[in-house]
Amino acid sequence: MKFTAQQIAMLVQGEVVGNEKAMVNSIAKIEDSKEGDLCFLANAKYEDFLYKTNASVVLVNDTLVLKKEVSATLIRVKDAYASFALLLKTYEEHTAPKPKEIIEQPSFISTTAKVGEKVYIGAFAYLGENVVVADNAKIYPNTYLGDNVKIGENTIIYAGVKIYKDCVIGDNVIIHAGAVIGSDGFGFAFENGAFQKIPQIGNVVIENNVEIGANCTIDRATMGSTTIKAGAKLDNLIQIAHNVEVGNATVIASQVGISGSSKIGNYCMIGGQAGIVGHIKIADQTKINAQSGVAKEIKEKGLSLTGSPAYDYKSSLKSQIVYRNLPDLQKKIYALEKALNELKNNK
Amino acid sequence: MKFTAQQIAMLVQGEVVGNEKAMVNSIAKIEDSKEGDLCFLANAKYEDFLYKTNASVVLVNDTLVLKKEVSATLIRVKDAYASFALLLKTYEEHTAPKPKEIIEQPSFISTTAKVGEKVYIGAFAYLGENVVVADNAKIYPNTYLGDNVKIGENTIIYAGVKIYKDCVIGDNVIIHAGAVIGSDGFGFAFENGAFQKIPQIGNVVIENNVEIGANCTIDRATMGSTTIKAGAKLDNLIQIAHNVEVGNATVIASQVGISGSSKIGNYCMIGGQAGIVGHIKIADQTKINAQSGVAKEIKEKGLSLTGSPAYDYKSSLKSQIVYRNLPDLQKKIYALEKALNELKNNK
Amino acid sequence: MKFTAQQIAMLVQGEVVGNEKAMVNSIAKIEDSKEGDLCFLANAKYEDFLYKTNASVVLVNDTLVLKKEVSATLIRVKDAYASFALLLKTYEEHTAPKPKEIIEQPSFISTTAKVGEKVYIGAFAYLGENVVVADNAKIYPNTYLGDNVKIGENTIIYAGVKIYKDCVIGDNVIIHAGAVIGSDGFGFAFENGAFQKIPQIGNVVIENNVEIGANCTIDRATMGSTTIKAGAKLDNLIQIAHNVEVGNATVIASQVGISGSSKIGNYCMIGGQAGIVGHIKIADQTKINAQSGVAKEIKEKGLSLTGSPAYDYKSSLKSQIVYRNLPDLQKKIYALEKALNELKNNK
Repeated sequence: MKFTAQQIAMLVQGEVVGNEKAMVNSIAKIEDSKEGDLCFLANAKYEDFLYKTNASVVLVNDTLVLKKEVSATLIRVKDAYASFALLLKTYEEHTAPKPKEIIEQPSFISTTAKVGEKVYIGAFAYLGENVVVADNAKIYPNTYLGDNVKIGENTIIYAGVKIYKDCVIGDNVIIHAGAVIGSDGFGFAFENGAFQKIPQIGNVVIENNVEIGANCTIDRATMGSTTIKAGAKLDNLIQIAHNVEVGNATVIASQVGISGSSKIGNYCMIGGQAGIVGHIKIADQTKINAQSGVAKEIKEKGLSLTGSPAYDYKSSLKSQIVYRNLPDLQKKIYALEKALNELKNNK
Repeated sequence: MKFTAQQIAMLVQGEVVGNEKAMVNSIAKIEDSKEGDLCFLANAKYEDFLYKTNASVVLVNDTLVLKKEVSATLIRVKDAYASFALLLKTYEEHTAPKPKEIIEQPSFISTTAKVGEKVYIGAFAYLGENVVVADNAKIYPNTYLGDNVKIGENTIIYAGVKIYKDCVIGDNVIIHAGAVIGSDGFGFAFENGAFQKIPQIGNVVIENNVEIGANCTIDRATMGSTTIKAGAKLDNLIQIAHNVEVGNATVIASQVGISGSSKIGNYCMIGGQAGIVGHIKIADQTKINAQSGVAKEIKEKGLSLTGSPAYDYKSSLKSQIVYRNLPDLQKKIYALEKALNELKNNK
Repeated sequence: MKFTAQQIAMLVQGEVVGNEKAMVNSIAKIEDSKEGDLCFLANAKYEDFLYKTNASVVLVNDTLVLKKEVSATLIRVKDAYASFALLLKTYEEHTAPKPKEIIEQPSFISTTAKVGEKVYIGAFAYLGENVVVADNAKIYPNTYLGDNVKIGENTIIYAGVKIYKDCVIGDNVIIHAGAVIGSDGFGFAFENGAFQKIPQIGNVVIENNVEIGANCTIDRATMGSTTIKAGAKLDNLIQIAHNVEVGNATVIASQVGISGSSKIGNYCMIGGQAGIVGHIKIADQTKINAQSGVAKEIKEKGLSLTGSPAYDYKSSLKSQIVYRNLPDLQKKIYALEKALNELKNNK
């Protein structure tokens, strides 16, 4: 497939600066690009590559002010990253093989399970009693769907995902390989010198358009549901404890842990390896920095937090800077004490 | 199933305050409850819900002093959480389907493997040479039991668990989906510019009544055994390195990492995302706060620790408070220096 | 099998101190050893055990200066740990069962897949279209190899590993159970109030002699490759994001997270639970302490870093010490202010 800069500009509704007939036949990162490549520049960190790239065409933000001459043809768009995403999607649709629509053997499908139209069931997949797999869903090999699990339309369950009984997965959901949905919440009562298990009789509900990363673990509720609301995106190796609620379109980076019964608002962003204690609420649009530990309810919308324990981002940065200066400050304090004593004694 | 407050009080040995004939037919969380529900109140954070609940019956601690009037019938017990756990267990026993006692096909059972009575072996489970599965054990689909693995009585191995050769799992153990038991310890010797693998010829021993969370990883010992002692409870995504020993009834929250050869005492509690360096001992009943990093041996029993590196909880909290005040303190120091210089010069 | 101290000394090119005819028939840790055992002492923390061990023979570094008398026969070598590794390897080669070279049934091997000589394919393994498994590779049960995956010679893929389409695994690689290779990178563009998925059309390349721990997740590149270079060693539960590059012979402890597009140099060592932000470079031979958070490019080779955010190890340790002293320093500052005011007023 070959396209001219002009053709691409039409697709992304952009303006060509340079040779409208420049030809591209592949997609690449700006730092690895060669003639015939189409790339994009969205992160200012990579701007230097723009001035030395051999790529034929580069998508850039229309706000970009060039610092030097550029040999590539530019296409100026409102959001270079979003436009590039659109092109990648178009590219993938044209190049990816047609999704499978067969039931491979051997697989285990209970007689009471219901499987929709145009579904793929990979070999060694297990569908328990009363499982429902809706139209166009793709269940990859070696997955386990416990009794009564429901999988929505167009949803993709990658290889080796394990979903315990009674959990409900919405439409257009993607769950990556190795994720575990619906394992028992971590609840014990201490009696007679030992921990007695609290039965976990709830489930997990994953709403539409959610993406769950590889090897995440989402525990079932003690009662009721652990809920991941529509449009939320979870990276890999994340722990969601029992009875947690993750809000709409909230984005969580990898290795985050959210403790039991906490409720995360809508449109929050949580950085990698952050932790949130149990039984608190986090307001909508909260931003939590990587490795932070949130120990208290966040009532106000749109705050940025950092640190462990986490608090206001700007104040925390100021303390971080002074922290590095601590040995010097300690010396100053001791010097001040000495000087003051001398002053007193000299009086 | 319907029960009166009086019937439930008898089961949990509690005292009814209110209408003894109040009827309940389901179980719910106090914040989500409606007429006909039985709930409990154990965590003071949720006390407000007690005064507005529509639940018919609420289990409360006998020490609770009411601040307002309550419309629900109360049952006062010594430990509301433990009593509720008992009720949940009773409820689950009456409502859960009878555990499976069949060998589903296709599964792979070596000719030398021994399978006890009333065992469930799910489809696509793999039992290597000389594997022993004792009576009443439940081996879910897609699990892997390597050569010589032993599974004790009543033990549940959920879907997709992988247990390497020679590991020994006790009675009444629960291992959640995706956990890996007995992978190689992380040991290399640096020679001639490259890392040479140290063979890991030991195993993992998991004693009776242990629970292991989803996607945990417990490495086999270099020699001897990595041991999880009786009654210990591990949450999800925990890393236990080679030759570690976790003590009896120790409770570990999710995403904790314990480095090689460390020995954790009995009845310890370790918060989420905490880390413990290798080759140290942690005394019995140590409490380690979430996200802490323990870098030194803890000899004294029953200490509470926090921070990275972790030390005494109370002292650490004091430093945390001053930390937030650092920018202000730095200003004060500079002001003091200035003022002192002025004093000196004015003399 | 029985060996004399003299025979072992010849194998490891060491010098016997004591009874050359001392017999050993098993291998043990120095703290657990009994007569007939061979142990080693490499970590000074364990030196006390040397003076009370009942082991018959102990490997020690030739630089060791004894503090007391030792009853065991010693073999002095240049590097006791490396020599012990060699012995363990020899022991394992003599005692481990011969690796399997069969294709167990049922397994799923696409008609277009190519399987080499002396390969083991475990039951319930899945080989997609055009998969290539080279000679002597061992593919354990319940693994998933997506379309076009290549597995090199002598490589071991343990049970339940999931490798997405198009990924390339080198020779002599070990991937432990439950690891996920090639899941989608975490990339979304925010448009019209929702996150739109950025297709991830790249792959993962794992070069020769790499070891990947249990339940690690290594995401495929958006474009191009996420690369783990030759000889790198990764512990368990590590997250490697899209387009990351891990350098040759770099060693990463468990639960580390490396964010998108970062490039880690050669011969680096990264401690457990550390995190590295996206789009930065880390110079060769950098040492990053456990739980650190690296937020900035590291240009100079061979630095040691600690803290979150991480900086120079020695400076950071100094700040850590003062941190514990903060409550006291704050008191001193308030006292100084008071004393200074008194001085001023008394003038």
